[in-house]
Amino acid sequence: MSAILSKTESWALFSLSAACTGILANTFHGEGEPLIVSLALSGLAFAFSFCLIRWLGPTFMRVGLKGKDMSKAKQIEIPETMGAICAVVYILAIIIFIPFPFYKYIVAATSGGGNKDVMFELNQVETGRLLHRFPHSKLASYLSAILSLQSVVLLGVGDDLFDIRWRHKLFIPAFAAIPMLIVYFVDFGVTKVVVPVPLQSYLGEIFDLGWLYYGYMASVTIFCPNSINILAGINGIEVSQSLVIAVLIALNDVLYLIPINARPHPATDSHLFSLYFLLPFIGVSLALWKHNWYPARVFVGDTYCYFAGMVFAVVGILGHFSKTLLLLFVPQIFNFLYSAPQLFGLVPCPRHRLPHFNARTGLLEPSTAQFKQPPKPLVDIALNILHKIGLLRIEKNPQGQIVSCTNFTILNLWLVWFGPMREDRLAMGITAMQTVVGLLGLLVRHKFALLIFRQDNLTV
Amino acid sequence: MSAILSKTESWALFSLSAACTGILANTFHGEGEPLIVSLALSGLAFAFSFCLIRWLGPTFMRVGLKGKDMSKAKQIEIPETMGAICAVVYILAIIIFIPFPFYKYIVAATSGGGNKDVMFELNQVETGRLLHRFPHSKLASYLSAILSLQSVVLLGVGDDLFDIRWRHKLFIPAFAAIPMLIVYFVDFGVTKVVVPVPLQSYLGEIFDLGWLYYGYMASVTIFCPNSINILAGINGIEVSQSLVIAVLIALNDVLYLIPINARPHPATDSHLFSLYFLLPFIGVSLALWKHNWYPARVFVGDTYCYFAGMVFAVVGILGHFSKTLLLLFVPQIFNFLYSAPQLFGLVPCPRHRLPHFNARTGLLEPSTAQFKQPPKPLVDIALNILHKIGLLRIEKNPQGQIVSCTNFTILNLWLVWFGPMREDRLAMGITAMQTVVGLLGLLVRHKFALLIFRQDNLTV
Repeated sequence: MSAILSKTESWALFSLSAACTGILANTFHGEGEPLIVSLALSGLAFAFSFCLIRWLGPTFMRVGLKGKDMSKAKQIEIPETMGAICAVVYILAIIIFIPFPFYKYIVAATSGGGNKDVMFELNQVETGRLLHRFPHSKLASYLSAILSLQSVVLLGVGDDLFDIRWRHKLFIPAFAAIPMLIVYFVDFGVTKVVVPVPLQSYLGEIFDLGWLYYGYMASVTIFCPNSINILAGINGIEVSQSLVIAVLIALNDVLYLIPINARPHPATDSHLFSLYFLLPFIGVSLALWKHNWYPARVFVGDTYCYFAGMVFAVVGILGHFSKTLLLLFVPQIFNFLYSAPQLFGLVPCPRHRLPHFNARTGLLEPSTAQFKQPPKPLVDIALNILHKIGLLRIEKNPQGQIVSCTNFTILNLWLVWFGPMREDRLAMGITAMQTVVGLLGLLVRHKFALLIFRQDNLTV
Repeated sequence: MSAILSKTESWALFSLSAACTGILANTFHGEGEPLIVSLALSGLAFAFSFCLIRWLGPTFMRVGLKGKDMSKAKQIEIPETMGAICAVVYILAIIIFIPFPFYKYIVAATSGGGNKDVMFELNQVETGRLLHRFPHSKLASYLSAILSLQSVVLLGVGDDLFDIRWRHKLFIPAFAAIPMLIVYFVDFGVTKVVVPVPLQSYLGEIFDLGWLYYGYMASVTIFCPNSINILAGINGIEVSQSLVIAVLIALNDVLYLIPINARPHPATDSHLFSLYFLLPFIGVSLALWKHNWYPARVFVGDTYCYFAGMVFAVVGILGHFSKTLLLLFVPQIFNFLYSAPQLFGLVPCPRHRLPHFNARTGLLEPSTAQFKQPPKPLVDIALNILHKIGLLRIEKNPQGQIVSCTNFTILNLWLVWFGPMREDRLAMGITAMQTVVGLLGLLVRHKFALLIFRQDNLTV
């Protein structure tokens, strides 16, 4: 891969950067406008990551951060762990962003305006230029989110460098979540949840989960990064699914910001918080996507999967919409549950489960796990049933014993369903499915949540 | 180097950990006591870093993080960048510490005690069990300090991996300082300084430096890490100087906490803040020192130098005693100024300037820079003068032209003054000098500051 930008690319990136810098400079006139600043910074983050990914490829390869693309006829080596570049640019962007949503309150407080100014802002929140500012007390939670993201990047780079064992790396996100959870504890400490209507006669309207709530948050932070990390293995799939999830969360956030009511929605702040974290993420991910899509010029590394998952966990938890978040993770949840028989050792699990590349046709086929001895009776029955309902393909020897089955990942299942296809077709299929399922999830969230909750917080 | 702990070491570390865990568990009874928690966590941080440094050595070497010890007869390869382990343990320790100084205020606020409890604390601050708590508003600045430290570690690891060019790596600490400076801007925004008495007739008692103050803070953060990084090259010297500086700052902090007056000192909070950051630093550094002292079993890497310097910059800036801090950096300042002729190219600068190891005697001798052509007349005169006053040693050819001079580092100068010596003697000498100069600096700070300032803030 050439490490220099083409002339067209240089000009496009330069124009984008200039435009974003112009927008940024303009926000210093008047009151400033955090949401516009966030958009401009995201544009700059895209341009920076794009250049750095291109330029630093050879450097990464020199120190051994490189890998072979298994699903190509010509297995050349390309740079690995390039997600770390995106993550560093992203973190810099959200740090530089800090003064924009937080500064104005200080001015109000020190100029003697005090509460009066703050009231004024609340009234104007949906129309005025003061839109989208945060109370200063949110700063600690914003900083804790950055700390958690930075921790996951630091540990992710460690993982990519040292190739940490599977059962250890599962807990990397849990370690990284510590700053966020500790500041949550010190700062809000809200551990109460709204009880669904059918259960309210037993538990009351609001139930305090106490320490369990921290366990729940830790689980979300462990689940999101790892679930992205196991839906991986073909060009572009990690970034594509992350982009779809990010865009859908952002879409959901925007629903809370459009002025459909006279009064601003009570959850406005939470969803702004989420947008401020997602926009630059979309920026850097697009730059990475461009290089990681088929045929890949770089690999993203575990770092990117952890980082992306952590961004989602952070906005879901601190924005208080973790249940909605999980609706967008349905394909990942399915993939995890579907993988369970292999992850927990009921079925043999080869070192790599990515689809098999057929060099003759140039297409991907389902990869298989070989049974050295026939499966136990119960497993045998289960595999036969899965085969019958089309959730698996098994092969039997003349004696009727199962000798192999396709690997338990959603990628292989897709190939079982739709036949061998080229790598990018597979990635497109999964991405489209993720989009459709996610949109359905949001529909469920906003249309049917009223069946079990007293109110949808969008229409409060 | 063996990667396992000896039986004695295991028992000692186990006992220490058990004792610290016991102390920690005890603080949950009653009111808790942040300073004691900090000490216990520092003990645990020492034990953890000690074990991890020992255990992870082979892993680091496997991925190429290793180096040859140039100043030994047998140049075996040993692990490099082990400072990163200390830094990660340290960051985990100061994150886990967060609830201890910050939680109680929340309880006071939510239990309806409100201001009354806070007043109670202020009254009892020097005697009661509520000693050493922070107002919640300090949380953001505490978190920003952690963010800056974590950034410097992330960038430092990048430097150790990719071997970034000298003129780029100078600015690594400046990048890492961004979160701290931005939160400073959003949070306090205090940029006023007390004017020395002789200048007060011109500038007034208090002078607002405005943006210059941010420039000053950025300079301090650039200076501290880099100055430690250039006083390096022999076993143990990086950690020793950092430990001396850390202990001296901690000593200065303690001066503000001992109850010499009836009322607590107004700067108590700042110096507690500093202690909370320094105690775990001393813990992890001792563990590293044990492995890095002559004969070194591991190298510390640039990561450690950046990390150590950043800890000092953070406590100096956020504790508002950066001038005092610089008094403790006198040897580093001298070393930097003394290095300037080589750093700025007036005198040839070889790739490595560390003292020369004489394999026959086993002693270190001053290393030299060779002049390919005679120096320019002015440089020639300057070098001759430095030679005369004993700040350099030059060699001339029969024509009287300078052909070589000792390298411009304090380590070589020490060898010029006291003759060749073994590596550990040199490190001990420099460390002792650092201690004496630092103590003198503190004496100057507290005894003579009154000559140019109206009051020493210790005796307010």
